[in-house]
Amino acid sequence: MPSIRDVAKRARVSTATASRALRGLPSVTAETRARVERVAAELDYVIPFNASSLASGRTNSVGIVVPFVSRWFFGTVIAGAEAVLREAGLDLVVYGVPDAAGRARFFDRMPVRRRVDALLVLSLPLTAAEAGALRALRVPVVLVGSTAEGIPSVRIDDFAAATRAVRHLTELGHRRIGLIGESDPPPHGFTTPGLRRNGYLHALADAGIEPEPGLEAAGGFTAAAGETAMERLLAQPDPPSAVFAMSDEMAFGALRALRRARVAVPDEVSVIGFDDHELAAALDLSTIAQPVADQGDRAARLLLDQLRRQAPAADVVLPVELVHRGTTGPAPAAR
Amino acid sequence: MPSIRDVAKRARVSTATASRALRGLPSVTAETRARVERVAAELDYVIPFNASSLASGRTNSVGIVVPFVSRWFFGTVIAGAEAVLREAGLDLVVYGVPDAAGRARFFDRMPVRRRVDALLVLSLPLTAAEAGALRALRVPVVLVGSTAEGIPSVRIDDFAAATRAVRHLTELGHRRIGLIGESDPPPHGFTTPGLRRNGYLHALADAGIEPEPGLEAAGGFTAAAGETAMERLLAQPDPPSAVFAMSDEMAFGALRALRRARVAVPDEVSVIGFDDHELAAALDLSTIAQPVADQGDRAARLLLDQLRRQAPAADVVLPVELVHRGTTGPAPAAR
Repeated sequence: MPSIRDVAKRARVSTATASRALRGLPSVTAETRARVERVAAELDYVIPFNASSLASGRTNSVGIVVPFVSRWFFGTVIAGAEAVLREAGLDLVVYGVPDAAGRARFFDRMPVRRRVDALLVLSLPLTAAEAGALRALRVPVVLVGSTAEGIPSVRIDDFAAATRAVRHLTELGHRRIGLIGESDPPPHGFTTPGLRRNGYLHALADAGIEPEPGLEAAGGFTAAAGETAMERLLAQPDPPSAVFAMSDEMAFGALRALRRARVAVPDEVSVIGFDDHELAAALDLSTIAQPVADQGDRAARLLLDQLRRQAPAADVVLPVELVHRGTTGPAPAAR
Repeated sequence: MPSIRDVAKRARVSTATASRALRGLPSVTAETRARVERVAAELDYVIPFNASSLASGRTNSVGIVVPFVSRWFFGTVIAGAEAVLREAGLDLVVYGVPDAAGRARFFDRMPVRRRVDALLVLSLPLTAAEAGALRALRVPVVLVGSTAEGIPSVRIDDFAAATRAVRHLTELGHRRIGLIGESDPPPHGFTTPGLRRNGYLHALADAGIEPEPGLEAAGGFTAAAGETAMERLLAQPDPPSAVFAMSDEMAFGALRALRRARVAVPDEVSVIGFDDHELAAALDLSTIAQPVADQGDRAARLLLDQLRRQAPAADVVLPVELVHRGTTGPAPAAR
């Protein structure tokens, strides 16, 4: 059996460098890493099982805790983080926690398993007990889409972004503006829906519009839920002339309900979404574009900084942008 | 420091059972596992770092090799697999290999790292060298969406499914039928595009229709690529009256190109996709529904069977189904 010394000798590097290269640690040049890996493959060298981790105390893995793996937003954040971690030679371990039971199991079990060097937590507002469990792990943690005292985070300003979306509608002359949001209370205690609703109310107040409870419909961040919510809004005695859906997927469903009801978009009803989902352009949907892959990218870089013991920024807020496409237009009265 | 014996005693189970429960191995009842985890948390017990893996030779992780983490198909397969693996107490490690370099690096490095007990490989047709590298790992491997000698797989019958899609169009009286497919050669040597194209040609031949190279447009499995491909088809001297797009995402892009060109769907041009993407219903897209999460689910179960040394089925082919929605209708001449 060849040893790490054989690999190092043949690759003309020190044993420490050969070991670092094969463990995927960051401080090795790509060229050296490639040479060491080629030699290791030629010699059929295999790292003794987990010896590298035992020696360094490192697992060379980063965990990502995610409510819904298959939803576009989360998949895109994961892809953004995965690219950065792969480049740094770290593996990405995905922990799906779709419901309260899965979430409880993760936070109960994680501390006794210690399988990762660092954790990214997506969109989950942490309870005090959960934050405590993460602290007990003594590994770097970065949040995406939520904040917690003492834990770095990457996010957008949901309140300001939703205000911008609804202001776009009031600027177009709309006064009866519907909201398609989340169920109440939201799953997992998500804070994003509340912040976006506050933005909606703020933009209405700014335009001197009195909010009407009948113009708010609970959705659930899926196209099907958005469709049902839009049907409820259309069934109102005096339906809205414009709708802000808190996610593009809900907006897609709302557009379907409008098409089925033969309501012209945007001539009779305007629709604006939130995300700039990869299909928003294909559907010509006006929306608030948020940098989704970038949030994963930035969060992964913050984790790498922490693993290298460089001081990370505390709370990174990325910019959003209004994208005016074909689903929003002047209010019917203002034409 | 409490020991595993303290945990076992207080949880009223054997040391072996306590250890199995905390390592997430499958042969422990959910009730026992919950009790052991609760006791471990109460006692602040932490499994000695990787001792469990060293003792059992297990990492308690399953790797998933995936070309594009953020694409709907792959995200949905991952979610299906993740749910099964989580239930079995196994972690899911995601290896993204978006390009040839990433793929080469994975197959070079994996054998020297041995970080997983088993591997799922999504959609990548394996070269002989890659299959050899996986064999050298001596861990169970299951393929999703491709096949290789001696390796179990879960997939659909792409040829038959595409034939069904195009037959739907010929049954509606269409004779000029366009194809929106993949670039040539396809990235990663994907075999799916070739199989679906063969299904298209087969259905044409069945209906006595001569294929025309000008009615085939290379896409790329994204909405943007589908839009460009549809524009090229519309620019033909005699454009098709119906189009088969090899993925729903390409079909969404094609619908946008048709809307921009003010071509009525399905009155002037019918469009059928492939997948039953979660937004296909919202867009009223006729399509071939394939069970995507189920492919991840079944593949993960095959892996568990192999880890438990039960003989797995060799090649699981799941059924597809034609979903006739609003984007396909009779050929203009046949009205």
